[in-house]
Amino acid sequence: MAEFDIIATYFTRQAQADVGIGDDAALIRVRAGYQLAVSADMSVAGTHFFAEIDPFAIGWKSMAVNVSDMAAMGAEPKWATLSIALPEVDAAWLQGFSEGLFACADAFGVSLIGGDTTRGPLNIAINIMGEVPHGEALRRNGAQVGDDIWVSGVLGGAALWLQHRLGKLAIHADELPMLAEAMHHPQPRVLLGLALRGIASAALDISDGLLSDLGHILKASQVGAVLDWGVVPKPVIQRSQVNPATLHQAVLAGGDDYELCFTASPVHRQTLIALSAQLALPLTRIGQIKAEDGLQVIVEGQSMELPQKGYEHFG
Amino acid sequence: MAEFDIIATYFTRQAQADVGIGDDAALIRVRAGYQLAVSADMSVAGTHFFAEIDPFAIGWKSMAVNVSDMAAMGAEPKWATLSIALPEVDAAWLQGFSEGLFACADAFGVSLIGGDTTRGPLNIAINIMGEVPHGEALRRNGAQVGDDIWVSGVLGGAALWLQHRLGKLAIHADELPMLAEAMHHPQPRVLLGLALRGIASAALDISDGLLSDLGHILKASQVGAVLDWGVVPKPVIQRSQVNPATLHQAVLAGGDDYELCFTASPVHRQTLIALSAQLALPLTRIGQIKAEDGLQVIVEGQSMELPQKGYEHFG
Repeated sequence: MAEFDIIATYFTRQAQADVGIGDDAALIRVRAGYQLAVSADMSVAGTHFFAEIDPFAIGWKSMAVNVSDMAAMGAEPKWATLSIALPEVDAAWLQGFSEGLFACADAFGVSLIGGDTTRGPLNIAINIMGEVPHGEALRRNGAQVGDDIWVSGVLGGAALWLQHRLGKLAIHADELPMLAEAMHHPQPRVLLGLALRGIASAALDISDGLLSDLGHILKASQVGAVLDWGVVPKPVIQRSQVNPATLHQAVLAGGDDYELCFTASPVHRQTLIALSAQLALPLTRIGQIKAEDGLQVIVEGQSMELPQKGYEHFG
Repeated sequence: MAEFDIIATYFTRQAQADVGIGDDAALIRVRAGYQLAVSADMSVAGTHFFAEIDPFAIGWKSMAVNVSDMAAMGAEPKWATLSIALPEVDAAWLQGFSEGLFACADAFGVSLIGGDTTRGPLNIAINIMGEVPHGEALRRNGAQVGDDIWVSGVLGGAALWLQHRLGKLAIHADELPMLAEAMHHPQPRVLLGLALRGIASAALDISDGLLSDLGHILKASQVGAVLDWGVVPKPVIQRSQVNPATLHQAVLAGGDDYELCFTASPVHRQTLIALSAQLALPLTRIGQIKAEDGLQVIVEGQSMELPQKGYEHFG
């Protein structure tokens, strides 16, 4: 099967573009008064996922981690390109992968407008583009002393699944599906990101772990923070034996969460509680921005010794 | 060395963007009245280049093949993202690679605005974006019966170098540097692409070989073509022994040329001859668009048996 056949068979759908797949470049138009938000994420077999994972899940997640960057900017995801290196042409794998990719793209209004297909060790590089009204993007550098710190959803599920998969942690069979779902089908928080325009003073998505990613906000905003471990939203695992250190590590530093972490003035508390109900998405106030440098996590009144930093591919 | 250090050390430069590297996404503005042209190319060690090649050349070419897609659309290249998987952190390699990448980016006005750095088999995925006035992009589907077919530069040099490198062809030492240059430092024809707006009826860049790529124009435009082998611009190799079949293969089907192939009405001949002089770039009229389906190459008055099609990664 030739490159053009692979693209035609698996990756060509109707696109919201002036010109989509099939010329030297796609052509799109950005609405007047909007900035284009652009981000790229690469997923590599053996680094980001186990090669034997369900290809639908690989397709979903490859797109989802990119869509999540749009959510983190308060941008409306619109277009993506896919460059993929394949070790071989495996029709069943390509079918599942493309279905997962488009399931996520369709769920969040993303058109695939171009890319490249080639031979090589499995590697999925997606570049995503979205629109945000000029000046309204959620940045990392606006956190103010006294702001609340919020996170969406539940943290640490994907990291616990990974520990289990690596044979380092026993998880009860009843509790595994929920963790697997967190790892393989992250839900980009696009609607939350859009709703946070004008409310959040800073925002990002948690990919490397809460402490590591919140650290980017603190550094960019030149502030510090204190978090209350007791209220940080954790997976409900009552039938598995997970010791406190493992849970700290997974929830605070595990990564692969793709939830939003954001700061907002306390005046927005009622708005955010209402938004949580409206989106049927937990939004939890986990701490506060401080003037003093550094990041403290309080557990039972004491400052916790922080777990290792988030995942570093070259650490 | 951590991912953030690699990005800060090697890949962060001043960018023409509202927000560049360092947030969840870059933010750019597209000028009113312009479309955004978007294209992506992935380069894989062992598939697109030999891993031992000078990293400067790998960096240059990775960017150049993307810039070439902007040239083929008549778009002004502006922004790019780089996603790169590295098997290890090799400072000397990264230094050379990034210098080559930015040398090409700077030469063609491209700002690097984002991307991803991760561990994995060497893989370079670039997504490029450029601006083109609305409705003026050079497409593949506009070739008209009677149009001239033109190519820029010289074809086949990179393919001859590759045959030599694979040990299948002896090239005289005096003639090798020219061929190596064609392979490793292709010059995207951006100025030509811009000048062809309003002149070319169809255009693309030659990456898979003249016959294969011209075939895309013919298919999209629902026309045929006849080419005159005698005038197709070939590398000047007088001291190497290259048999006719090898030369046909390299020039017509070798690929990796990154020259533009375009069609234009005969009324534009004088304009294009003047443009060639102005750009100091050979522009050669190699054939004509016909109503009859198919692609003929005439050599000494006879229709040539066509060489194999261009390179197919999954052929």
